[in-house]
Amino acid sequence: MKWFRFEQDGRARIGVEEAGHRYDVTPQVYTDSLLEVIVRGFEMDVDLDVAPRLTDHVRLLAPYLPPRNVICVGKNYADHIKEMDTAGAGKFVLFTKAPSSIVGPFDPIERHADLTQQLDYEGELAIIIGTTGRDLTPENALEHVFGYSIINDVTARDLQKEHVQFFRGKSLDGFCPFGPVIVTEDSFDPADVLVETRVNGQLRQSGSTKLMLRDVVTILTEVSRGMTLEAGDVIATGTPAGVGHGMTPPTYLQDGDIVDVSIEGIGHLQNKVKA
Amino acid sequence: MKWFRFEQDGRARIGVEEAGHRYDVTPQVYTDSLLEVIVRGFEMDVDLDVAPRLTDHVRLLAPYLPPRNVICVGKNYADHIKEMDTAGAGKFVLFTKAPSSIVGPFDPIERHADLTQQLDYEGELAIIIGTTGRDLTPENALEHVFGYSIINDVTARDLQKEHVQFFRGKSLDGFCPFGPVIVTEDSFDPADVLVETRVNGQLRQSGSTKLMLRDVVTILTEVSRGMTLEAGDVIATGTPAGVGHGMTPPTYLQDGDIVDVSIEGIGHLQNKVKA
Repeated sequence: MKWFRFEQDGRARIGVEEAGHRYDVTPQVYTDSLLEVIVRGFEMDVDLDVAPRLTDHVRLLAPYLPPRNVICVGKNYADHIKEMDTAGAGKFVLFTKAPSSIVGPFDPIERHADLTQQLDYEGELAIIIGTTGRDLTPENALEHVFGYSIINDVTARDLQKEHVQFFRGKSLDGFCPFGPVIVTEDSFDPADVLVETRVNGQLRQSGSTKLMLRDVVTILTEVSRGMTLEAGDVIATGTPAGVGHGMTPPTYLQDGDIVDVSIEGIGHLQNKVKA
Repeated sequence: MKWFRFEQDGRARIGVEEAGHRYDVTPQVYTDSLLEVIVRGFEMDVDLDVAPRLTDHVRLLAPYLPPRNVICVGKNYADHIKEMDTAGAGKFVLFTKAPSSIVGPFDPIERHADLTQQLDYEGELAIIIGTTGRDLTPENALEHVFGYSIINDVTARDLQKEHVQFFRGKSLDGFCPFGPVIVTEDSFDPADVLVETRVNGQLRQSGSTKLMLRDVVTILTEVSRGMTLEAGDVIATGTPAGVGHGMTPPTYLQDGDIVDVSIEGIGHLQNKVKA
């Protein structure tokens, strides 16, 4: 099952996609907040037989604004480490992105030309935590997962370098396209799916999640050691090779570029870089 | 005026301290959330003449749980940079702490002996954002400040180093004592106040905020460039010299140690390290 949030008559509503059709389930979940659906665990309760079917022309919104920063795993694909600064290779690198950087799956990415000349993309699989917990084990980790989505971990490479810690170069407004849907854990296997990024139609990243140095279960057990994961947390799992910074010569995003990140079984984000 | 949150009969309530007396203003602000007070800007509305006066024996809670990660400025005192790894010296280093690490001003700091052998303290002045804004200027920056508080930026030095990015070593549960009050901006000048930390009564840190490489206004203008600051955001402004890691030999916190962080005009945090 896929959950999404969409706009209708200027208001946010909750939808479910099943077998290629989209339904409005807002009245059934008694909320316009997908975060609330996740926290309360409504997923078993919707009856699509009585839900209004939607046309294809709804505007999709970011699934929700997480209750704290997006947690990001860095350097999690060996081939991406090779194309970047290798400092931290092999280490479990964790940083965060401010929720204020989140935008919808088809919203613009702000260019920030006054702050960066090295705007770059990073397509990533995102884990959506459904149940609060700490010190998760390989046995129970997936029970804490609500589902999966897509994040474009947009990065200002020059700021990332200048500020040493990644937070600022990763957190400018518009730097976190998120969505378009959340696929529930029971209907998605994250072990071997392609994460692909295209810029203006040109394939730039294409790597399977099977190349992750730490897989989803390992990420969950390691992140949650001594640190409580909370319902609604979003964990971005790192990006495969092919970022603009690693090209010869480095090729950064420019005004008007269209960045498309897709993951098999989830869907795609498509965001235009805009001054 | 000082705002705080306290527990009475198992419930959180909102208090105000004025001229050495504490009052329960919960009914006047129509909420038990200090974050809501901050976001709505209630501060002008309380009438202490009609508020019940509190005894000294109330249990103070962390002022509130911020809506996203605590934003922290690293390497902001020259003498602290000297005692630490000098990588990043002079740079504007920003990282975050997970809200799940926040505990009350007199609650225990969890020892996490299975994860770290290098538990350390960092006493810091915290800025509390009152009004959402971006690209703040030196002229309007302070208009966005609700007030000031204290943070102990507890850090696992070994994790900080192992994970390269600071987030994990700074974000274990219990690693962010916060409070005891928020002093409103109109009654506190952050330009030259002593930040002091004692361990078991022994003075370890004693540095004036005038030694900050970036002062409060500079932090606000730089952090908010291209990144929206939101009402309720907490910004920790860095720590002066004297952390345990910088002692000869390095001296880390142990079970039972009592860590006290005080700032003139705000008050103090006092937290016991506990297994």
